[in-house]
Amino acid sequence: MSRFLKQRYQAMEAYTPGEQPRDMEYIKLNTNEAPFPPAPSVLEAVGKEDIALLRLYSDPTCSALTEKLARLYGVGKENIFLSNGSDDILNFAFMAFGEKGARFPDITYGFYKVFAQLHGVEAEQIPLEEDFSLDYKRYCAGGRLTVIANPNAPTGMSIPVWQIEEILRSDPHRVVVIDEAYVDFGGESCYPLIEKYDNLLVVRTFSKSRCMAGGRLGYAMGSAAIIADLEKLKYATNPYNINRLTQALGEATVDAEDYYRAMCGEIIRVREWTAKALEALGFRVLPSQTNFLFVSHSGIGGKALYLALKQRGILVRHFESQRIRDFNRVTIGDKRQMERFVETVKDILQEAGYENK
Amino acid sequence: MSRFLKQRYQAMEAYTPGEQPRDMEYIKLNTNEAPFPPAPSVLEAVGKEDIALLRLYSDPTCSALTEKLARLYGVGKENIFLSNGSDDILNFAFMAFGEKGARFPDITYGFYKVFAQLHGVEAEQIPLEEDFSLDYKRYCAGGRLTVIANPNAPTGMSIPVWQIEEILRSDPHRVVVIDEAYVDFGGESCYPLIEKYDNLLVVRTFSKSRCMAGGRLGYAMGSAAIIADLEKLKYATNPYNINRLTQALGEATVDAEDYYRAMCGEIIRVREWTAKALEALGFRVLPSQTNFLFVSHSGIGGKALYLALKQRGILVRHFESQRIRDFNRVTIGDKRQMERFVETVKDILQEAGYENK
Repeated sequence: MSRFLKQRYQAMEAYTPGEQPRDMEYIKLNTNEAPFPPAPSVLEAVGKEDIALLRLYSDPTCSALTEKLARLYGVGKENIFLSNGSDDILNFAFMAFGEKGARFPDITYGFYKVFAQLHGVEAEQIPLEEDFSLDYKRYCAGGRLTVIANPNAPTGMSIPVWQIEEILRSDPHRVVVIDEAYVDFGGESCYPLIEKYDNLLVVRTFSKSRCMAGGRLGYAMGSAAIIADLEKLKYATNPYNINRLTQALGEATVDAEDYYRAMCGEIIRVREWTAKALEALGFRVLPSQTNFLFVSHSGIGGKALYLALKQRGILVRHFESQRIRDFNRVTIGDKRQMERFVETVKDILQEAGYENK
Repeated sequence: MSRFLKQRYQAMEAYTPGEQPRDMEYIKLNTNEAPFPPAPSVLEAVGKEDIALLRLYSDPTCSALTEKLARLYGVGKENIFLSNGSDDILNFAFMAFGEKGARFPDITYGFYKVFAQLHGVEAEQIPLEEDFSLDYKRYCAGGRLTVIANPNAPTGMSIPVWQIEEILRSDPHRVVVIDEAYVDFGGESCYPLIEKYDNLLVVRTFSKSRCMAGGRLGYAMGSAAIIADLEKLKYATNPYNINRLTQALGEATVDAEDYYRAMCGEIIRVREWTAKALEALGFRVLPSQTNFLFVSHSGIGGKALYLALKQRGILVRHFESQRIRDFNRVTIGDKRQMERFVETVKDILQEAGYENK
């Protein structure tokens, strides 16, 4: 840290991304990436001619991609905002709408707390219930920017859309952000509510269900007015932030809806298989509507399991925070990876002296 | 604008990017893009396998590219910061180091003012001299973040490195940002000074001299401490903000130094040819060390020339601000484009009744 850094940022803790060790080949089940590549048509969507055109700025309005998304969801172009990943959009949302503070669960995407700190937004963290479910009534009224990941991470659990509507209706004077990063793996999207509630912002990403974590593409849906606010912040920081190739790949991705739906279906099937296998080994498995499972076991600590798996070439995500330290978040890979994962867990439990049944 | 937007942002004016009209094919001399594609080896640098790997997050540390740049400039990896275009880096610099205000010229890159407004940084704008030169003595001491584009835009003029050193030395308690977006077209870089002055941040881009405006890649060089500050802000907003393909293309670009040096040489030659041709037509042409010329003519107003060129299919950049409204900023294209530009200007002057010689 330099002696020049603004005071507010000096004490701030930055977000810690999931580790990406390069010392050996790992089965990566730690950052909720897709185990499958983008659709075949996406792989063909950019070539040398597109790279040659990189000499020109990208379209800051992303007009072709915006149009495709608007058509896909049956909303107006003015209801869609695109930016460099959904983190980028969440950052803008905290900047734009956090003046009176923000409210979000105590166990959720770790970045919300970072955005709040960064922008001097007072954060009210509401504990999840004992069983890690989210009681929507605790988010009604309150006058603060409200941010809910639905489904939630790292728990994987979700709330139904009618509860989101209750939250929206309870206080029309603050923005409610619903972060739907994982919604395509079995959750129910609330985006149709943007027509009725001008205080709703639905945030989405191409990183998970669209196999493009490395492409950096996120979008949001909301009323024309709040979309205009986000555009304003984007134009005041980095108007060209989505590069030309990513825009082209994003367009091809929207055209390949069927491929991605099938892939999400496969991930859901493998998730259910994995959940059952883990339960059979004595794990507690929270009900997941995402591409990951949040699991704990009475016979081995969360950290111990994480380390034992890492030693055996499998990465999962462990969080140090007190309430969830017994758990690990396990991304759903392909069937073979998950079979290997389950086998490895079995070995570890055995070695730890835990005998199942 | 929504009723939810934070007060500070409500009155803020966003930056206006150069227009990108799509109603016809234009010769684009308005956004300082390169007239040539990236190097042939760069065009081959990413293929289907790389697109398939987009399912994985990009490396937030950009370690391979950082290493290449560190080797190229003979600095440490800890002295290099990479982000989503140089705008992104400038934004972070205003956030991080603007607590006591910022100082920059009245005529310079229009985005500095926007960043200052966005982050509530008090802006002191120092007028350029009568001849549009920059008097370095006016930037000595002062205690505020100091931001100088060198060469400056849209004037194209630069100051020598010894003057930057005087500025740095005059007040070691504030950060001096030297924006070297255009330095490869004849300017002199001050990056070797980062070893001696820990308050220097040199900002660079792949957009201009590396033909990658649409790729979104910028970097900065500075002391390890101020680079760490920028990393902290990046990790607190959008850690993965450079996508995988751009990182790979950036690496190939660094490996193709020779191609880009030759290209910059060609642009300089065409610039000098264009400057002479315009002077012969009675233009005032500011001495440029960039890939553009800033020109005015007593026989036709800046706006009138801009509009007449646009009507004839040539886009240049006109700014409305009082002091420079007589001027246009003309990006240097390839030789054929500039011949066409000069011919068209000749026609316009003739039609406007201005007889040269």
